[in-house]
Amino acid sequence: MPFLKEEYGNPSSIHRYGRRAHKAIEQSRKQIADLINADSSEILFTSGGTESNNTALFGIAKKYPQSRIITSSIEHEAILEPCKKLEKEGYEVIYLPVNNHGVVDPLILKKNLTKNTSLVSIMFGNNEVGTVEPINEIAKLCKGKNIIFHTDAVQAIGKIPINVNELKIDLLSISSHKIHGPKGIGALYIRKGLIIDPVILGGGQENGLRSGTENVANIVGFGKACELSRLHFLENVSKLKQLRDYLSKKILLEIPEVTLNGHPGARLPNNIHLTLLGVNGEDLLIKLDENGIAASTGSACSVQIQKESHVLQAMGFSHEQITGSLRLTLGISNNLEEMNKTVEILKKVVGELRLVSPFKEKYSF
Amino acid sequence: MPFLKEEYGNPSSIHRYGRRAHKAIEQSRKQIADLINADSSEILFTSGGTESNNTALFGIAKKYPQSRIITSSIEHEAILEPCKKLEKEGYEVIYLPVNNHGVVDPLILKKNLTKNTSLVSIMFGNNEVGTVEPINEIAKLCKGKNIIFHTDAVQAIGKIPINVNELKIDLLSISSHKIHGPKGIGALYIRKGLIIDPVILGGGQENGLRSGTENVANIVGFGKACELSRLHFLENVSKLKQLRDYLSKKILLEIPEVTLNGHPGARLPNNIHLTLLGVNGEDLLIKLDENGIAASTGSACSVQIQKESHVLQAMGFSHEQITGSLRLTLGISNNLEEMNKTVEILKKVVGELRLVSPFKEKYSF
Repeated sequence: MPFLKEEYGNPSSIHRYGRRAHKAIEQSRKQIADLINADSSEILFTSGGTESNNTALFGIAKKYPQSRIITSSIEHEAILEPCKKLEKEGYEVIYLPVNNHGVVDPLILKKNLTKNTSLVSIMFGNNEVGTVEPINEIAKLCKGKNIIFHTDAVQAIGKIPINVNELKIDLLSISSHKIHGPKGIGALYIRKGLIIDPVILGGGQENGLRSGTENVANIVGFGKACELSRLHFLENVSKLKQLRDYLSKKILLEIPEVTLNGHPGARLPNNIHLTLLGVNGEDLLIKLDENGIAASTGSACSVQIQKESHVLQAMGFSHEQITGSLRLTLGISNNLEEMNKTVEILKKVVGELRLVSPFKEKYSF
Repeated sequence: MPFLKEEYGNPSSIHRYGRRAHKAIEQSRKQIADLINADSSEILFTSGGTESNNTALFGIAKKYPQSRIITSSIEHEAILEPCKKLEKEGYEVIYLPVNNHGVVDPLILKKNLTKNTSLVSIMFGNNEVGTVEPINEIAKLCKGKNIIFHTDAVQAIGKIPINVNELKIDLLSISSHKIHGPKGIGALYIRKGLIIDPVILGGGQENGLRSGTENVANIVGFGKACELSRLHFLENVSKLKQLRDYLSKKILLEIPEVTLNGHPGARLPNNIHLTLLGVNGEDLLIKLDENGIAASTGSACSVQIQKESHVLQAMGFSHEQITGSLRLTLGISNNLEEMNKTVEILKKVVGELRLVSPFKEKYSF
């Protein structure tokens, strides 16, 4: 709050208002670094996860013209779209397949690591189905071949323990609002010694790597969110897992023809992704919303476009399975009562929708 | 405030939390559009003035490979640095000279408008010396030759009346914190029908022109700041001018060997830029700060780098004149008493510094 009111200094100004703002963003940088066991100097502030991903991909690619970049077929659009642009510019981009749980196979990655490969970017945890990728193995393979490794950890931060040094990660994207910090602020971890080309140029803030007057208030809020996430990590994760397991078991038990998607074990503690056959996910969302439940079919970020999920396609899902998909994401402020209510409402609205489903005859509802 | 607390919805989500956030950013878009007489659909949200400028330059340049881009030699680094990058990529960039008041000559621009020119980018008001450029004439020249015209209006917004239709501006950059809105949010006006290449790619927000979850709270604050700026425009400008004229007259009267830089008439209502011979600007800033006055030598955005102002160099200033420069910027919350206090303190500290100046003998202090 003070940084939205009386502490309005520009961190680049040398007067006292500027110095106090500067000090505040450096404290926040430390809080963020501490959450992933990095050094403050390795944290670059961006406007969010999307810009962090763009900065990692373009920032490395521009250093290695026409090189090979390897990613997966289930990445967020903030990775896939920059990759498409790089392909147009003459880079070779390999999109690794995943199995039906949404897992990248490190052996397939290994086969694709050529001399010309500059960068591997594999997400930590998937934003739709919640699958957590074998980042440890993937990072080791890259390190062994001296190839830069980036991971989009926007979904994983605060949910999965991340130690950039143990995991040998070179670049890592995170976003504030995924851990209850303010929107519009994110960070890119850049391993010391790694040089990237800046995407946004100007006054030279952030050591010339990201120009523009710093978003002080949001940075401070992001830092605090990281600190809280670090201090309450175990209890948060344990609570989320408990609620998630309770909810998913109850749904699978009480509603027929439902499957849980993504990896059954290696998944984000707050994610439940379901296929409810015979139901249109969009209709389901509207009905759930009418009953006070905020859910999603897949990624919120592309919902306006209404296209089929590329993640579920890559996992080999049929059109019908994709249509009937639902994502329920939990937060630390949720409680058991809400889980019970959710099952009750879901059961009711799924039943209603299936009654009028064109697939009605096909399944044993 | 609600958008930092209970209204945490993602504007791309179709549930009620998402829809409310979406509605809020659309209201803000309208408030911003109204300030410059644009249509809401012509407003693109960015993370600030720097990103707006980058988006305008890269966004147009990529559509016209190897074309000529014309700018001025006194632009902000958020224009000059992207221009340097484009030069490296094979674009021809012309940096127009300015006169000793910092004014771009439209006749010189006219001579440089070739068939191959894709874009002209000239700032509305200069961030260091406060000079307001002849945007009306410049924009007309561009329109006559069917060349796209962009202006960095970050300093001018809320200070100079801007009507993008009357002025025939195609692209215009603004920033929230320059009109007392939150930091970390800005906008780019893009005339209807004009197509730009996006800089940040991902989930497709902002019609695919700027991906990333929207910074809802800052967008809402920016919208409100624009509305307030529009409603109180005349009284704000009149107050700023009154304070500025009082302060600058008093300084010129009471302190010897001081000159006012920039254009005497065509200047931002909140800017005073001075040269105080025999004084080192950096020393002056520290002394002023000790006395509670927050000032700047030039641009706050590049102060960490400590290089000579390219603006003053382009205006033909000597090393000594540049060294002795001071920028005083006023805000609407300033008052006459503060102006008197500022003169008193400035007089005292300039006197002290001149006593120990190596140029002591040179001037009649």
